[in-house]
Amino acid sequence: MNAYAALEAHYGRIGRLDDALEILFWDMATMMPKGGAEGRAETLATMKVLRHELAADPALAERFEGAAGQELDAWQQANLREMKRAYAHATAVPGDLVEALSKAGSACEMTWREARPANDFARLAPKLAEVFRLVREVANVKAAALGVSPYEALLDQYEPGGSAARIDAVFDDLASSLPALIEQVIAHQAKRPAVIRPDGPFPIDRQRALGVKVMGTLGFDFDHGRLDVSHHPFCGGTADDVRITTRYDEGDFTKALMGVIHETGHALYERGRPARWRFQPVGVARGMSVHESQSLLMEMQACRSREFIGYVTPLLRDTFGGEGAAWSVDNLHRLYTQVRRGLIRVDADEVTYPAHVVLRYRLERALLADDLQVQDLPGAWAEGMQTLLGVKPPDDRDGCMQDIHWMDGTVGYFPTYTLGAMTAAQLFDAATRADADILPGVGRGDFAPLLRWLRANVHQWGSLLSTDELLTQATGKPLDAAVFRAHLEKRYLGDA
Amino acid sequence: MNAYAALEAHYGRIGRLDDALEILFWDMATMMPKGGAEGRAETLATMKVLRHELAADPALAERFEGAAGQELDAWQQANLREMKRAYAHATAVPGDLVEALSKAGSACEMTWREARPANDFARLAPKLAEVFRLVREVANVKAAALGVSPYEALLDQYEPGGSAARIDAVFDDLASSLPALIEQVIAHQAKRPAVIRPDGPFPIDRQRALGVKVMGTLGFDFDHGRLDVSHHPFCGGTADDVRITTRYDEGDFTKALMGVIHETGHALYERGRPARWRFQPVGVARGMSVHESQSLLMEMQACRSREFIGYVTPLLRDTFGGEGAAWSVDNLHRLYTQVRRGLIRVDADEVTYPAHVVLRYRLERALLADDLQVQDLPGAWAEGMQTLLGVKPPDDRDGCMQDIHWMDGTVGYFPTYTLGAMTAAQLFDAATRADADILPGVGRGDFAPLLRWLRANVHQWGSLLSTDELLTQATGKPLDAAVFRAHLEKRYLGDA
Repeated sequence: MNAYAALEAHYGRIGRLDDALEILFWDMATMMPKGGAEGRAETLATMKVLRHELAADPALAERFEGAAGQELDAWQQANLREMKRAYAHATAVPGDLVEALSKAGSACEMTWREARPANDFARLAPKLAEVFRLVREVANVKAAALGVSPYEALLDQYEPGGSAARIDAVFDDLASSLPALIEQVIAHQAKRPAVIRPDGPFPIDRQRALGVKVMGTLGFDFDHGRLDVSHHPFCGGTADDVRITTRYDEGDFTKALMGVIHETGHALYERGRPARWRFQPVGVARGMSVHESQSLLMEMQACRSREFIGYVTPLLRDTFGGEGAAWSVDNLHRLYTQVRRGLIRVDADEVTYPAHVVLRYRLERALLADDLQVQDLPGAWAEGMQTLLGVKPPDDRDGCMQDIHWMDGTVGYFPTYTLGAMTAAQLFDAATRADADILPGVGRGDFAPLLRWLRANVHQWGSLLSTDELLTQATGKPLDAAVFRAHLEKRYLGDA
Repeated sequence: MNAYAALEAHYGRIGRLDDALEILFWDMATMMPKGGAEGRAETLATMKVLRHELAADPALAERFEGAAGQELDAWQQANLREMKRAYAHATAVPGDLVEALSKAGSACEMTWREARPANDFARLAPKLAEVFRLVREVANVKAAALGVSPYEALLDQYEPGGSAARIDAVFDDLASSLPALIEQVIAHQAKRPAVIRPDGPFPIDRQRALGVKVMGTLGFDFDHGRLDVSHHPFCGGTADDVRITTRYDEGDFTKALMGVIHETGHALYERGRPARWRFQPVGVARGMSVHESQSLLMEMQACRSREFIGYVTPLLRDTFGGEGAAWSVDNLHRLYTQVRRGLIRVDADEVTYPAHVVLRYRLERALLADDLQVQDLPGAWAEGMQTLLGVKPPDDRDGCMQDIHWMDGTVGYFPTYTLGAMTAAQLFDAATRADADILPGVGRGDFAPLLRWLRANVHQWGSLLSTDELLTQATGKPLDAAVFRAHLEKRYLGDA
């Protein structure tokens, strides 16, 4: 076996371990009885150690050298590039630092679970400071190994090749334009008829049946996937067996429906990954911003469109026996596009969400650079919320303690949410220009034209291209904040 | 880390991989969409290769030597003994032979799936002959490594330390006594009132609710386990998360109920394994005959007793709205203890089942020893059925092609069914002598006394003792066929 073939065999094993890990995670979140938690944590930890040993196998370095001299096609070359990137991440951090961060992250997360409801930031602060201290060390050693800045070394784990300078430019643009836009949109929406929330209850079995029907409409194949319930919705599994989850609220059907649509967007991307390369590094999703673009393209671009609300309204009426003004297309569209200033990121609408992300991005960069101390986080948070969103958190619980991300050391992830939203806008804009039947299709419940375009322009490429190359190939240009802004202005300040 | 501690760490990893494999198997049988089958097979194959590499790691030999000089307590010594046994199995067979048998087994099983419904033994025969040829090779190399006979080398995989001479003695005893006993029992039952089968349909949700209730009565803890549906019922998972399955027939509640009770017996054994040793070789179940004794003790000994039928009858009436003669305790007890000569092992009752097993045991020994050729199997099967059961199979479909076991190379497993039934009888006899409240408890739906005895005398011992030692400690003697025979005579020829 030549060096490249040996590498494919080796990374194929890692791919299969990842498949197993996906199912074990899914099971833990959906099926496992509570008494299995402790044992499952141990089993997952062992599996991850085995995976790490494969990913950091010293024998790989020699094989990379051997493969460098071989004749490889474009996919193989890209696969080799992604292998090397994964190897650099796996080998950059000494084992004792990995373990120290893992332990500090678990301890901080446990403290957070109690300190947040108690609104006790003082209790959390030393744990969080320790996490950031260790994250900084990790970022420094990874930066040296990858030849990028410390923040970019973390970002690269979620957004391969991501550039902090590019994010700065795009986010500065958002930071300067969003506050005025939010102001305008809220004023504009105040002139519309008041939104009427449909009255429940909305039985869970009917919500589920509706979700299954809409998933099918979007192109989800139930021979290759499932819909289940978990506390935090997610998309897991693998290309041939994609597992999405949601949660139901009997008093409000709107969140589960859009949640299911969001996860279906992720699922369609997973399902569309290139068959030949699915268990190789080049065959996985390009990164978290592209992944999030696929969920937000479905949820925000396609399914909050007037066209889709027009299509889905009779279905909602039939499902829940709804009638009257609350169940008109106009009202439901207003409901699904309502903009409000809020404290909580996960409850935010499309217009205010980026402001939440810009705040977190700026703060995590400052914390990582040691320009901001953890003890000063609440003040910086309140100030940022005031500037970007015009609201002041009444406490830390719904302020700087609301997200789990930093607690376990996840730094560099937040920007991908908004990069994803912008990418979604740019892809949907290009798609609807390229095929004039896409939006009418969405309006008649025919997502085949849209899915065809996404398969051809996004899904089938796996990680062959960089995010920039992928976006340029699909839309004619790299990420352009103007497209997203134009989308927001059209939807939220237009006449609709 | 000393040699023994290093061995514990190593086998702990294998234990965790086994836990992961259990959940992946369970998911495949219960949750996986059909389109995931191909990928799952690949993932399981990779996981098994990783497991095999750990189990056959050449570095272990040196550690065994190192550990031999250490001071170890009884559990550690037994753990080391079980490690060495597992290592001998893992290293005995050359990789190319493992692969050849695996491929021949898959090919034979695939042919069997088509040849059985077509009743085409001629098509199956060459594939099955190839499987037996390779099984013979495996048995020979394992026999040399373990210092036992070839058949015992296979048996040892399922029944550690199992002796063919002992099985011969016990099974010869059965073979000579069973035909007359079956004759007598059928004549005896012919004098009873005819069995009335309750009329359905029996809705699946009610059957499930009944199963859950009865599982709880037996001592199953749903914080540490689940009940689901699969085509072939099984017990999987691990001690803290035991997963049993069943299948439902809307026209007949009796099978699912006893199926659930059977699997619950397995589950209680798994759940009761010694906590400190659960992921070590000494902490696993002692072998398949003890495992089967735990399921059959619940299904056959406890729950087909007059006492349990008396307890469960009102529950059955409530569950299904049953009334009239079919729903009397007498009739339901007759239904659950009905003896009939049949062609199919899995449909057999407690009295005729051992005859099916004795036939298979004798045939697989002859096939392995090359004393019987595969092409002569149908004739030998028909002759054995006539002698042991007094019935003649009309075809091979319901004759020698009915079981999957041999098709994939599983030889040496069949005897554990009947060894388990005999062990169950002996354990239940000892238990009810040791605690006079056990049988009355079963009659009032209080299984705590029985479970307490099983925990103390079987479950908590894991693989510390040999099967013989375990049985002797619990019942005062090794396996004694007379106890099983006395049980059959009392239940099936007594006045009840």
